Amino acid sequence: MKIDLNCDTGENFGVYRLGEDTEVMPLVTSVNIACGFHASDPLNMRRAVRLAKQHGTAVGAHPSFPDLVGFGRRVMNLAPEEIIADVIYQVSALKGFCAAEGVPMQHVKAHGALYNVAEKDAAAAETIARAIKAVDENLIMVCMANSEMVKGAKAAGLRYVEEFFADRAYTPAGNLVSRKVAGSVVHDADAVADRVLRVIKEKKVKSIDGTDVVLNAQTICVHGDTPGAVELIRKIRGELQNAGLELEAFGQWL
Amino acid sequence: MKIDLNCDTGENFGVYRLGEDTEVMPLVTSVNIACGFHASDPLNMRRAVRLAKQHGTAVGAHPSFPDLVGFGRRVMNLAPEEIIADVIYQVSALKGFCAAEGVPMQHVKAHGALYNVAEKDAAAAETIARAIKAVDENLIMVCMANSEMVKGAKAAGLRYVEEFFADRAYTPAGNLVSRKVAGSVVHDADAVADRVLRVIKEKKVKSIDGTDVVLNAQTICVHGDTPGAVELIRKIRGELQNAGLELEAFGQWL
Amino acid sequence: MKIDLNCDTGENFGVYRLGEDTEVMPLVTSVNIACGFHASDPLNMRRAVRLAKQHGTAVGAHPSFPDLVGFGRRVMNLAPEEIIADVIYQVSALKGFCAAEGVPMQHVKAHGALYNVAEKDAAAAETIARAIKAVDENLIMVCMANSEMVKGAKAAGLRYVEEFFADRAYTPAGNLVSRKVAGSVVHDADAVADRVLRVIKEKKVKSIDGTDVVLNAQTICVHGDTPGAVELIRKIRGELQNAGLELEAFGQWL
Amino acid sequence: MKIDLNCDTGENFGVYRLGEDTEVMPLVTSVNIACGFHASDPLNMRRAVRLAKQHGTAVGAHPSFPDLVGFGRRVMNLAPEEIIADVIYQVSALKGFCAAEGVPMQHVKAHGALYNVAEKDAAAAETIARAIKAVDENLIMVCMANSEMVKGAKAAGLRYVEEFFADRAYTPAGNLVSRKVAGSVVHDADAVADRVLRVIKEKKVKSIDGTDVVLNAQTICVHGDTPGAVELIRKIRGELQNAGLELEAFGQWL
Repeated sequence: MKIDLNCDTGENFGVYRLGEDTEVMPLVTSVNIACGFHASDPLNMRRAVRLAKQHGTAVGAHPSFPDLVGFGRRVMNLAPEEIIADVIYQVSALKGFCAAEGVPMQHVKAHGALYNVAEKDAAAAETIARAIKAVDENLIMVCMANSEMVKGAKAAGLRYVEEFFADRAYTPAGNLVSRKVAGSVVHDADAVADRVLRVIKEKKVKSIDGTDVVLNAQTICVHGDTPGAVELIRKIRGELQNAGLELEAFGQWL
Repeated sequence: MKIDLNCDTGENFGVYRLGEDTEVMPLVTSVNIACGFHASDPLNMRRAVRLAKQHGTAVGAHPSFPDLVGFGRRVMNLAPEEIIADVIYQVSALKGFCAAEGVPMQHVKAHGALYNVAEKDAAAAETIARAIKAVDENLIMVCMANSEMVKGAKAAGLRYVEEFFADRAYTPAGNLVSRKVAGSVVHDADAVADRVLRVIKEKKVKSIDGTDVVLNAQTICVHGDTPGAVELIRKIRGELQNAGLELEAFGQWL
Repeated sequence: MKIDLNCDTGENFGVYRLGEDTEVMPLVTSVNIACGFHASDPLNMRRAVRLAKQHGTAVGAHPSFPDLVGFGRRVMNLAPEEIIADVIYQVSALKGFCAAEGVPMQHVKAHGALYNVAEKDAAAAETIARAIKAVDENLIMVCMANSEMVKGAKAAGLRYVEEFFADRAYTPAGNLVSRKVAGSVVHDADAVADRVLRVIKEKKVKSIDGTDVVLNAQTICVHGDTPGAVELIRKIRGELQNAGLELEAFGQWL
Repeated sequence: MKIDLNCDTGENFGVYRLGEDTEVMPLVTSVNIACGFHASDPLNMRRAVRLAKQHGTAVGAHPSFPDLVGFGRRVMNLAPEEIIADVIYQVSALKGFCAAEGVPMQHVKAHGALYNVAEKDAAAAETIARAIKAVDENLIMVCMANSEMVKGAKAAGLRYVEEFFADRAYTPAGNLVSRKVAGSVVHDADAVADRVLRVIKEKKVKSIDGTDVVLNAQTICVHGDTPGAVELIRKIRGELQNAGLELEAFGQWL
């Protein structure tokens, strides 16, 4: 049985550094690389793709609302035509760096507020999926498991994977608990590892009120920019391998 | 005998309008579309590619220094690695809109100050050419005829065309006369048409001091954003056709 | 009896032109000058302030969400602290150009989506008003008549004027009819002039469904970037003067 | 005898962090706060001014070329009118945050490539000085000691201080050795402290070739974003105090 680990990377901007890309890149199987709208710039995008190539990590684009100051975390009221154009632009720009390095692009995962909008709005998700498909119909969309985003990808006729957030609390309805709520992030490494294993084996996660949420995930989202992130990713990797799972980018086995 | 007419287009930005794209697009054979660094934005790039497709006009990318406020006309002291990354980013972003519309991308022409730098500096031109080649080795670089830019394209092993500026005065050395100098732009339509015909037939243009400059051009650059631009382009087209020349995008016959 | 005419101006950006500033500036008594977040840039701001000075037109700042591509017309989900900082930044930047020209700054009017949010949300309006007051407590806030914006200005203890939109249709509740709705803009010059006179004399405007809305306005908002805008402003001026009203910037008589 | 210590601060941007502002702020007497063109944004500018206020550190603006991706370190070929407008805009924006906090603005120091241009070009320096004076004629310009910048400030009739870079090597002609050259930065803390004391007492610094350069400095520039920066600043403070010098912002005693 195979499983993918995905992580946001390539978020450096100009002289600014964010996240531990050089340490994270060899530990995960897929990376979501920022495309200049919420983070990164052409030079840092090129570096991130080269680093992924060096470690054999599968590359995906991480498009966002155009909001560098807000790191793409502030919802913007864009028209569907604007979302389509912004996604085509960003995905294609990163795809060019992949072409330059001879690396295939595996997937696209919406970032921040754009992800949050698509998670709850199938029409917005379909808009994003259509934009991805317009660039390359072989790209795979990373979707929040069980969310409206999955419906959007299906409606657009685009391949997708469902993802589980290793260290984020879930509501009983299967949504992410807002970061503003206490307990929204699970900090205990053992607890995180247990959650991941249970999701893979039982397809269940205990929500913030204790009830079980059922979900099916082909990829586990981990974070690379929190304190102790690298150790946590190592621990998750170890537990997954101990449990007999093979870590491999989803593009290889979907 | 065939000749190409190229024009900068797709320079609208947000609500702002610049140039007469809808009128120019059917009159020229190749267009250089802005990529968001000196002009345009994703939505306007998509519109420009669609308009080109509608008229069967060949599409090229028009990458620039990252300077929206200065319309890419201010020289910036970028490192070669920064130029490479900026060019890959912009060309690829526009290529994505071409892919989305099923339109091939024919060429790349540097914009404004980036063009001016490459015109005089073969190393900078080669840097740009290598970036273009990294995205797609079949792309054609539009170069100032007889300039260092041609040397750069050759050194990078990239196909290129040489261009003649229909309405810009030339120095005796074959450079463009700076826009700050009186007489730098030829406004008389008959004079412009005569210059174009002579360049094609005799491979010569009279420079600002009256001496002849020898040059070889496969494409004629016309402008779409000056008063009377559309009429001037119509006149040039007419004269070229009267002279028995066939107007066709250079990608078809190079 | 005195009345003010206000108009958005200074919306040029880089090489891009928008609106008829040179024609509008002598016709209105107050101008709202863009501050670089939805339109304009430092050089164009300086030009706009100089033009206002030349015509004795009172200057105000026109702060926006940070969205140049969207011209500040797309709602962004900013935290109150972000709105405060963005407003202080923009108002102060324009105030510097006023200082450089020896021109007092009279007022601040939120632009586009920021205006729309404040019109319906007294807390957002108060946030904006507090930011304005932090820069200079003598500044006057231009508010949509009868709206939540007025409550916000009052709560912040900031002076304000209420404005009437000369050519925009009103809902029976006194809000602006969305631009997406047919009939949202009144194009007939006579009808516009009649509306303005009635609002001033009777403090009433007929809403889109024919019922009267009561409102009290010290300033009339006119537009400078629509076809026929200059003629329309001239007509409104003429009608107001014929009716014995004195046109003067509100800062002089509030 | 009094001396000022100045440091670039307020360079955070969005979620990105740069420098040790909270540790540096109480150790220096003057800070140069970024204004959004090479670093920072409105919210981070407000935080930086508040932090300076909390520690009683004198505030100055740190205007730059408009180049966020390049951190203002890439020379841009701007027209004097563009430099004037960009400087007025940035200085005024920061001044607004000072007004909001009831903190006076003490000075302006050009950043990065803009500083380097002004250091070698008195006309560019005078352009900057005139822009500063247009905002507030009481502002003090921080100039590279002995450079063309000093001439520019004088020509504009603006007050200025001359600064010495504690940890940067000097050429025999008194310029900074380029960062690209080996030995351009002095890393040894004792050596740095000795240089600072000698500049203050003897008005001399040993250049990179061993010859002495004569210079007169009222402020010492230290860095807050290099490894060991905070310790180095502490050491310099200690040495200065041991030598009987009083550390105080130059605005208090110039």
